[in-house]
Amino acid sequence: MKGREDILKIHTKNKPLSEDVNLHEIARTTAGFAGADLENLMNEAAINAAKDNRKYIIKEDVDKSFIKVGIGTERKSRVVPEKERKITAYHESGHAILFHVLEGVGPVYAVSIIPTGQGAAGYTMPLPENDNVFNTKGKILQDIKVSLGGRIAEEMIMDDITTGASQDIKQATAAARAMVVKYGMSEELGLINYETDNEEETFVGRDIGHQRMLGEQTAAAIDKEVKRIIDECYADARRILEEYVGVLHKCANLLLEKERIDREEFEALFDDAGAVTE
Amino acid sequence: MKGREDILKIHTKNKPLSEDVNLHEIARTTAGFAGADLENLMNEAAINAAKDNRKYIIKEDVDKSFIKVGIGTERKSRVVPEKERKITAYHESGHAILFHVLEGVGPVYAVSIIPTGQGAAGYTMPLPENDNVFNTKGKILQDIKVSLGGRIAEEMIMDDITTGASQDIKQATAAARAMVVKYGMSEELGLINYETDNEEETFVGRDIGHQRMLGEQTAAAIDKEVKRIIDECYADARRILEEYVGVLHKCANLLLEKERIDREEFEALFDDAGAVTE
Amino acid sequence: MKGREDILKIHTKNKPLSEDVNLHEIARTTAGFAGADLENLMNEAAINAAKDNRKYIIKEDVDKSFIKVGIGTERKSRVVPEKERKITAYHESGHAILFHVLEGVGPVYAVSIIPTGQGAAGYTMPLPENDNVFNTKGKILQDIKVSLGGRIAEEMIMDDITTGASQDIKQATAAARAMVVKYGMSEELGLINYETDNEEETFVGRDIGHQRMLGEQTAAAIDKEVKRIIDECYADARRILEEYVGVLHKCANLLLEKERIDREEFEALFDDAGAVTE
Amino acid sequence: MKGREDILKIHTKNKPLSEDVNLHEIARTTAGFAGADLENLMNEAAINAAKDNRKYIIKEDVDKSFIKVGIGTERKSRVVPEKERKITAYHESGHAILFHVLEGVGPVYAVSIIPTGQGAAGYTMPLPENDNVFNTKGKILQDIKVSLGGRIAEEMIMDDITTGASQDIKQATAAARAMVVKYGMSEELGLINYETDNEEETFVGRDIGHQRMLGEQTAAAIDKEVKRIIDECYADARRILEEYVGVLHKCANLLLEKERIDREEFEALFDDAGAVTE
Amino acid sequence: MKGREDILKIHTKNKPLSEDVNLHEIARTTAGFAGADLENLMNEAAINAAKDNRKYIIKEDVDKSFIKVGIGTERKSRVVPEKERKITAYHESGHAILFHVLEGVGPVYAVSIIPTGQGAAGYTMPLPENDNVFNTKGKILQDIKVSLGGRIAEEMIMDDITTGASQDIKQATAAARAMVVKYGMSEELGLINYETDNEEETFVGRDIGHQRMLGEQTAAAIDKEVKRIIDECYADARRILEEYVGVLHKCANLLLEKERIDREEFEALFDDAGAVTE
Amino acid sequence: MKGREDILKIHTKNKPLSEDVNLHEIARTTAGFAGADLENLMNEAAINAAKDNRKYIIKEDVDKSFIKVGIGTERKSRVVPEKERKITAYHESGHAILFHVLEGVGPVYAVSIIPTGQGAAGYTMPLPENDNVFNTKGKILQDIKVSLGGRIAEEMIMDDITTGASQDIKQATAAARAMVVKYGMSEELGLINYETDNEEETFVGRDIGHQRMLGEQTAAAIDKEVKRIIDECYADARRILEEYVGVLHKCANLLLEKERIDREEFEALFDDAGAVTE
Repeated sequence: MKGREDILKIHTKNKPLSEDVNLHEIARTTAGFAGADLENLMNEAAINAAKDNRKYIIKEDVDKSFIKVGIGTERKSRVVPEKERKITAYHESGHAILFHVLEGVGPVYAVSIIPTGQGAAGYTMPLPENDNVFNTKGKILQDIKVSLGGRIAEEMIMDDITTGASQDIKQATAAARAMVVKYGMSEELGLINYETDNEEETFVGRDIGHQRMLGEQTAAAIDKEVKRIIDECYADARRILEEYVGVLHKCANLLLEKERIDREEFEALFDDAGAVTE
Repeated sequence: MKGREDILKIHTKNKPLSEDVNLHEIARTTAGFAGADLENLMNEAAINAAKDNRKYIIKEDVDKSFIKVGIGTERKSRVVPEKERKITAYHESGHAILFHVLEGVGPVYAVSIIPTGQGAAGYTMPLPENDNVFNTKGKILQDIKVSLGGRIAEEMIMDDITTGASQDIKQATAAARAMVVKYGMSEELGLINYETDNEEETFVGRDIGHQRMLGEQTAAAIDKEVKRIIDECYADARRILEEYVGVLHKCANLLLEKERIDREEFEALFDDAGAVTE
Repeated sequence: MKGREDILKIHTKNKPLSEDVNLHEIARTTAGFAGADLENLMNEAAINAAKDNRKYIIKEDVDKSFIKVGIGTERKSRVVPEKERKITAYHESGHAILFHVLEGVGPVYAVSIIPTGQGAAGYTMPLPENDNVFNTKGKILQDIKVSLGGRIAEEMIMDDITTGASQDIKQATAAARAMVVKYGMSEELGLINYETDNEEETFVGRDIGHQRMLGEQTAAAIDKEVKRIIDECYADARRILEEYVGVLHKCANLLLEKERIDREEFEALFDDAGAVTE
Repeated sequence: MKGREDILKIHTKNKPLSEDVNLHEIARTTAGFAGADLENLMNEAAINAAKDNRKYIIKEDVDKSFIKVGIGTERKSRVVPEKERKITAYHESGHAILFHVLEGVGPVYAVSIIPTGQGAAGYTMPLPENDNVFNTKGKILQDIKVSLGGRIAEEMIMDDITTGASQDIKQATAAARAMVVKYGMSEELGLINYETDNEEETFVGRDIGHQRMLGEQTAAAIDKEVKRIIDECYADARRILEEYVGVLHKCANLLLEKERIDREEFEALFDDAGAVTE
Repeated sequence: MKGREDILKIHTKNKPLSEDVNLHEIARTTAGFAGADLENLMNEAAINAAKDNRKYIIKEDVDKSFIKVGIGTERKSRVVPEKERKITAYHESGHAILFHVLEGVGPVYAVSIIPTGQGAAGYTMPLPENDNVFNTKGKILQDIKVSLGGRIAEEMIMDDITTGASQDIKQATAAARAMVVKYGMSEELGLINYETDNEEETFVGRDIGHQRMLGEQTAAAIDKEVKRIIDECYADARRILEEYVGVLHKCANLLLEKERIDREEFEALFDDAGAVTE
Repeated sequence: MKGREDILKIHTKNKPLSEDVNLHEIARTTAGFAGADLENLMNEAAINAAKDNRKYIIKEDVDKSFIKVGIGTERKSRVVPEKERKITAYHESGHAILFHVLEGVGPVYAVSIIPTGQGAAGYTMPLPENDNVFNTKGKILQDIKVSLGGRIAEEMIMDDITTGASQDIKQATAAARAMVVKYGMSEELGLINYETDNEEETFVGRDIGHQRMLGEQTAAAIDKEVKRIIDECYADARRILEEYVGVLHKCANLLLEKERIDREEFEALFDDAGAVTE
């Protein structure tokens, strides 16, 4: 973090900063950013300031820039049908509430129903994670629950479900499958690597690689474990969203009104609700 | 839509328009058209006018152009055997009635039994859809029913069925399968991605991709769900077409007489029939 | 057909025709011929006339040319063993009788036991079909029966069966399989596409293609349906050939005597037999 | 055959022939030879004559040439261990007796235990077959029996069996499998093509090709039929060789003595034995 | 070893050595190092000395160099979160204790929680093994237990498990699988090679290679044996770590304090504990 | 053999030979050597003589050369740990005793525990086989037993088994599998080729090749037969080595003492033991 703050200082040497821009704070929220990302971040902020004919960079310039670097340019020009806006608002609120309530993920930096250049209908952006060398079983399970939260909110509130969750489902499945076949996190399957790819392994300096073919029983056991993990995460995530259904409605409505809400606005929804963090 | 109307204005600046050409209306019916499509549409309309030695573009010029851009040039020169014309008339009427009766799809812009350059024996053309970022489960099921409607009409009226439905069957299968393996829309299979392709996944910024091999039980469950979805859509679509069998005969006969009928002519068939929209 | 007659007129402008050459009749029997095929047909006829030092084209010139364009040059030079000639005569008679008796296929233009350049021991040539955009279930079943007719005739008359039916079997299997996996013509399997290839599908403008893997139960059900279709067609075709066994002998004997018989000669065999067309 | 005799006359125009060289007879025994093969045959014969400083070609020159063109040069230089010579003698005698006794194959032109350039330990050479366009089920079964005869003779006489039959087994399996999956010659499996390759089929002028996947039951049924065919051919071939065990010993002994025996010598073995041809 | 000492002498001819540098000792601990590795080792040591402006190489220079050549440069600059440091400390202690306690592996040269250039969070470095031509079943089982030790320590002490064991799991699985399919070390499966790859084999000078397809029963038996081996190794390794849980805590705490501990420091932990080596 | 003696004479024309060099004897022991191998053999022998500053080649020069051509250069420089030397001595003694005792294989030319350039820990070298065109079932079974002998000796004497048998296991498996799938040497599976590769077959001059897919039952039956063959060979080889356990110890001890023993030394071990050759 110290390194990031130093890099930020270098890249803002010739750029006057408003008082509300706190490089120490920015360094704290950009864990995982490479040097080039940080340079990119401040350059975009300077461009934002220039567009408004300001000589100095303000906090909002940095915020806009932060989202652009992480998510891509927002695409405000597209006119979104009202039904699609509403579905997106609930979908993103589902993700966001789980990020907030579940331990070990989040906090939420911004929630938005403005379509992005990458073709997403909206986004929920957590603060970047620490750049850990490894991940934990607990954290992976929380991430799966967050992924499923968008679809669950659709199911709870709308009378129909959408294809918008396909990328979430893909990520949740990949994570659950990796737990079972690669990380030895299923008691049923044990501390065994079940990947079927062809690559050569090296065991204590000797080549003992070969192509693996799994028996049908093993393939079935893997499928069953993946489904069990997803189903349990689904049940847990649904339970939480049902508990916080009041926040869900308030969050979706605020999004429909403001299109994008930031951390403070989002977290205030919980204060009012009096909901207890798990 | 506003943007489309503006683009249409630009591309008709030098083209005199008849009073029956309403750019606002055209903009409404061309959702999903890119700028190039709109330019193409008006150029073709101008060519149609020129062919008739008219200085101004009339509504019919735009209509012809609209079909050409969407479906391809009609191929009137081919002499179609009477039996083939009759089968095609019922097949297209089956699609068209389902577009009209089912909620969330349609309305029908034109129905035709004029062979097209793409090798189709006819076509049913709905108004273009909104350019949604996502699709819903309800809408996909309606689309499957519409796809199956052509074959169902053949079965109900003719004493034989044709290969003409193969593309419809392919689309319906692909849609039902995607519901199950990609969009998590089958309660039986859950919110899991069952695609077996090789591509690398990225999970929250880390590579955990690997080749997936499904167990035999899972493969069987997927097959069963796909069949259940198609069979239920078939039953529903058949029930509707049997209810509207009077319109089916009238529509097919009108097609045999006029070769192509437009929205007004098509919808009038329902008024007479006194049929109630579901 | 009108178009074909016109094209024929153009390509015979500079070629004197004998009175027995009827362009209207030729146009009728060349449905499915492209313009180039028709030009080819008349050029070959002119060459045939030239070979005989005639200044005008006679009907026989056109007939020879018609077979060459459709089947390939006959290869009279090869000396065929008597046993092979006899098997071929019955094999082709089996095909020909089914073409004649079954509704919706045929009529037979020529039957021959003269080996062709493509390595066939003989051929049965129906009049070209109409150039339909689609095919029907009934017509496909008749085609399968015709394909099986050659082998069935061998089984009925000869004391041995040959490898000569392998191409017929391949075609019949491909047709039966397509009925089941592509055309939704099996009630058991439903309106589902079971093709396992890799190609991307497009569903109402969105890519939802993926590689399909069928469960073992589905694969078994497909195999069973394909076998049922072939077995039923076999039984029906055999019943007919047993009914027409008198024509079968007469046809084979006439072929052994004349090597090639035309439509009139072939159909006369039925008049004598007093057989009733199904 | 007439054509072959004419070609032989052309290629011997400048080569004086001994009186024992009968071109008519040579034409009779070279069915299936192309023009180039015949030219090759007479050129080799001329070379043989030249090696012996003869101005004219004698029958023996043609015989040697005939074997060289059909089998490859004999490789007399290799010293063959006595045990290997004995096994080879019985192995080839097994093939030869079945060629002679079974209807529809043979007659045997030569039997030899001289190693060939292609790495065979010996050979049994039938007269070339007619160049039929097709083959029969009866003939294929006889060919399978002949293929198995070598191994069967080993089993009957020697106390060990050899790898020398692997090519025979490969041919017998390929033939039995083709009967089942390609030629519709198994009543159990029916007139269905079960080949699993990828190639596109064309059915009455329309593409309906696709990749085939067989169910496990079908795969098992094919395996069972192939085994049944081979096992029945084995039993039949063994019965015959046990009946002719006297000829088997005489033939093997004559081969050990003379290394190569011709048709007359071979057939004489049966006269003495008084064995009845099946 | 004599050879290595000679090579070391050559590469230190022009480099003054401190008295604590014992080339004989270094030769003993570098079994398996090629000549280039040894040259590399001493050059790095010289560079380390130069960095400290020393004219002579001391033991610490060689130690640092030894780790760099074997593991890669340490990456001290990265700031590691405290939770990650603790997990890593227990993970590496788990490996290290098993290296020490199990017969036939180890001794441990160094244990560290300093991240490395290769992306590892820490490392446990045994003395290099002798360069044996083969490995034993007993040694492979010990290696598997060592591999599993990191994850087991996580499970025992922390309230969560991490993805950090994925490489350990991959190695343990590859080793267990090789025991079963390649080294004939499973009584259940016997002295049979079950590798399914395509490569051609040569048997006593003859090619008998072919593609192998294993039956489902065999595939299941292999999966079961691999799981049995891993599960038994897991149970044994866990039993040991539970016995040495006191050393585990002390080792982890020392690592958190000093970041890297050497052989003497590590082994001293056992003296205090009074634990008996198995 | 005569040919080899002649070739040896040519390649020793300019090389004086000691009286103990017997070209006739060398020719007898080099069956299977090509001309180039023989030239290579004598050139190496001449080089060996030159190294000792001798003008003439002695028998030992030829012996060394013979091993180098057959096995590769010995690598005496590597220092082998005592445990590895002992395992290797028993492993090679196991191979050697089976070569000697079993009929139809051997005799043993040399046994050694000197590592070779190809990475083997030792070798047992039989006299080269005759260059047979084929192999027998009996001989293949003996070869399998010899292959398994190394591992069996390890199991009997040492308290651990090694990976050193992996190449032996690979060869034994390939041989047993070929017996079943290629050579028709399993009564259970019959005279059928079960290879699954893709290559085109030619049956009596016609292409009937196609890709083979085996049913699961067949695959299981093949696996079972391969295991039965290996298990029976294992039992037989173990029985023999237990009978000759005295020779096994003497042979291993002699190898540990002398590193390489020749035919005479090896065979003398049996005289003393008074063991009866099977």
